[in-house]
Amino acid sequence: MKFVIIGGDAAGMSAASRAKRRAPELEVIVFEQTQDVSYSACGMPYNLADPTRPMDDLVVRPARVFREKQNIDLRTGHRVERINREGKTVSGTTAEGKAFKVGYDKLLIATGASPIKPPIDGADLPGVMYLKLLEDGRRIKAFIKENNVTKVVIIGMGYIALEMCEALRERNVDVAMVKPRPVFLPWMHPELAARVRSEVESHGVELYPGYEIKAIHQGNGVLKVTCKGIDLEAQMVLTAVGVKPNSELTEQAGLELGPSRAIAVDRQLRTSDPDIYAAGDCADAFHIVTGERTWVPLALRANRAGWAVADNVLGTNVELEGIAGTAVFKVFKLQVARTGLNLRQAEEAGFEPAEIVIKSRSRAHAHPGAKSILVNMVGDRKSGRLLGVQMVGEEGVAHRINAAAVALHARMTVEEFSQCDLAYAPPFSPVWDPLLTAANQLLKQL
Amino acid sequence: MKFVIIGGDAAGMSAASRAKRRAPELEVIVFEQTQDVSYSACGMPYNLADPTRPMDDLVVRPARVFREKQNIDLRTGHRVERINREGKTVSGTTAEGKAFKVGYDKLLIATGASPIKPPIDGADLPGVMYLKLLEDGRRIKAFIKENNVTKVVIIGMGYIALEMCEALRERNVDVAMVKPRPVFLPWMHPELAARVRSEVESHGVELYPGYEIKAIHQGNGVLKVTCKGIDLEAQMVLTAVGVKPNSELTEQAGLELGPSRAIAVDRQLRTSDPDIYAAGDCADAFHIVTGERTWVPLALRANRAGWAVADNVLGTNVELEGIAGTAVFKVFKLQVARTGLNLRQAEEAGFEPAEIVIKSRSRAHAHPGAKSILVNMVGDRKSGRLLGVQMVGEEGVAHRINAAAVALHARMTVEEFSQCDLAYAPPFSPVWDPLLTAANQLLKQL
Repeated sequence: MKFVIIGGDAAGMSAASRAKRRAPELEVIVFEQTQDVSYSACGMPYNLADPTRPMDDLVVRPARVFREKQNIDLRTGHRVERINREGKTVSGTTAEGKAFKVGYDKLLIATGASPIKPPIDGADLPGVMYLKLLEDGRRIKAFIKENNVTKVVIIGMGYIALEMCEALRERNVDVAMVKPRPVFLPWMHPELAARVRSEVESHGVELYPGYEIKAIHQGNGVLKVTCKGIDLEAQMVLTAVGVKPNSELTEQAGLELGPSRAIAVDRQLRTSDPDIYAAGDCADAFHIVTGERTWVPLALRANRAGWAVADNVLGTNVELEGIAGTAVFKVFKLQVARTGLNLRQAEEAGFEPAEIVIKSRSRAHAHPGAKSILVNMVGDRKSGRLLGVQMVGEEGVAHRINAAAVALHARMTVEEFSQCDLAYAPPFSPVWDPLLTAANQLLKQL
Repeated sequence: MKFVIIGGDAAGMSAASRAKRRAPELEVIVFEQTQDVSYSACGMPYNLADPTRPMDDLVVRPARVFREKQNIDLRTGHRVERINREGKTVSGTTAEGKAFKVGYDKLLIATGASPIKPPIDGADLPGVMYLKLLEDGRRIKAFIKENNVTKVVIIGMGYIALEMCEALRERNVDVAMVKPRPVFLPWMHPELAARVRSEVESHGVELYPGYEIKAIHQGNGVLKVTCKGIDLEAQMVLTAVGVKPNSELTEQAGLELGPSRAIAVDRQLRTSDPDIYAAGDCADAFHIVTGERTWVPLALRANRAGWAVADNVLGTNVELEGIAGTAVFKVFKLQVARTGLNLRQAEEAGFEPAEIVIKSRSRAHAHPGAKSILVNMVGDRKSGRLLGVQMVGEEGVAHRINAAAVALHARMTVEEFSQCDLAYAPPFSPVWDPLLTAANQLLKQL
């Protein structure tokens, strides 16, 4: 049997490796359009923060190892341009311009996502950067060094924009951030978002939410970002306004798409063609709270889905339950985490949600060094179910969110969650963990 | 109605406060034999570490506030010596030697636990200390200062002994620890225990497990701890060999006792007398994994049980599901955490357990500053259920254990747990959280 994979990052290489490990006789061919496979894309902002580290530190396993040790037919510089479902072939062009065509028995589409390019004049100027591929990271790092960049404008204020902002400030680069929508972190409860905003501003970052971007111009070695109401100058512009799934190839092949035009897959990661799977940032997933399809491109799901595809191709029949949308990021001293639904999402999903925000501490009463933790918790008035949690704080947030994520997987009520036996010791928590305090307060609203 | 409470620490004062908040007209009388109420006993080692902090920093709410703001009839210096169930009275003696007797409609026994005194000669010598009450903490702190203590022998190697060891080393006091049993942290997987032991020893602490203690002698201002095979000298000896529930009063009243002679209570915290409740370190609880009675005296349960008793006294009928035995402590740079059952406990409870130990990292591949994390995970071969987790590491352990604790409350299988959507960002975790890596490995054994 021939298992063909389009895309050599997290989902694709996880699937290839697992398939070969489980079935060494299986022919596994991976087509990757770049020269890079299996790297930690999420690590790029942290790598960029340190001028002494080569970007290639982020490569988890080089192509050579996949080829030589794992016997995977990994073809880098191969861009797949067409899937022929009737003939069960994929075809495309190599980096050298040579056409190729290969047949498959089972196909995995793991084409990932791409940064959204804002439709403005000047978005293609040299010095206007995007961060997605390892090659993007290398390019940005080289550009900063060669041009001795001291001032950057970031278009966008999402978590990648914020991570990049921190990385640049660490290198003492001045940063201004601008975006058209007026609300900072719109998915977040306003009290928590305000805490994040004040942390960012306290590090000398200029924030301009609510400024429509008109164009980017170049002149005298300076880029000018012209917005409605303000002009911002910098040596480099980073565009981080979100990503979109790479699903064009899939759509052309007549396969179904789901939310945000991600590739629709069932719990076994099968597309609408039973011989074709999709996994990673290009594919959708079921949300464990709503039961509905959703698109949340994150690394754990990509790896997990890659494994599941390998198992299913080999006939094990693995079903993935779904995702909770659990995510965490660091911005300067703050840890910011979420899982499940926020109030608006809960309303849209048909729940009758109530929410609270509490302020607690990261350590016990009278324990030195305690930091404040804000918790937003959402529950359903009808069923009593826990629906979502957001947290912000300087310590004790990143891993604490996982307790709430597990509770969502278990479909716990807020009351059941409030009864959980969580860990307490003075250096790590108040007696009542901030999550329990939040649950106790939310219970009064339900 | 008259609600009488014996004991004014976590469980007793939680019950008193909640009862008065919910029903201001209720008469609430609390008898506390010491002068201290509502303090953070777990904070004592950390307070002792800092010679500049007064021990009374640990008082969460002084007696005056309970009396004046909350209108609780709080009688400190009142030792209850008898419960008369027929007459529904409690009686005893005040610190001034005056007899007292009071009737009750509902009674809460919240008498806590006491340190076990080893039955050896010299256990009562001046300079031989126990740590349980705030008064014990004050005494130890004063003794160290007045005698300029530079060398301490700790009898015992449990978590309080280890926390005290760290506190003393922080003050540059030399510490030797000794205990009769040969195994260091016997409840812990040997690989994890070895990691803790090496951390303790790396801080210049002498460990003597497996040395039976014969007697303590005093001479020339020095205490000599005579053991089988070795003599240890110090200016102060701290005995920390565990605690026992204060259940004598309860037993004399003819009420049932449970494991470890803790007071047996049902899920509503009622003793075998429906008008008498027990809560806190003196009472037992149901273990959510085994369903059996267990005795794990910890602060969160005490507070939670205090609240539940108040609700039940006021007719709300609250049932506590039980405890997972979740606990965490810090020893030098290490965080040490557990929840649920270890392999031996799982066998004793009738499961067919399998276990694994994995070594993972606290941060992503190539992220600077990553520390190793050891995870021990136990599951049941028959049902596939997750039974328990232990973790050791320099960061990312204390709160991570809560995800496993919630999974135990939800009776998740290891497979269900392995599918949970846990948070990932390079500064906080590998893509596969150490708990997920452990679950994936354990699945292969089940």
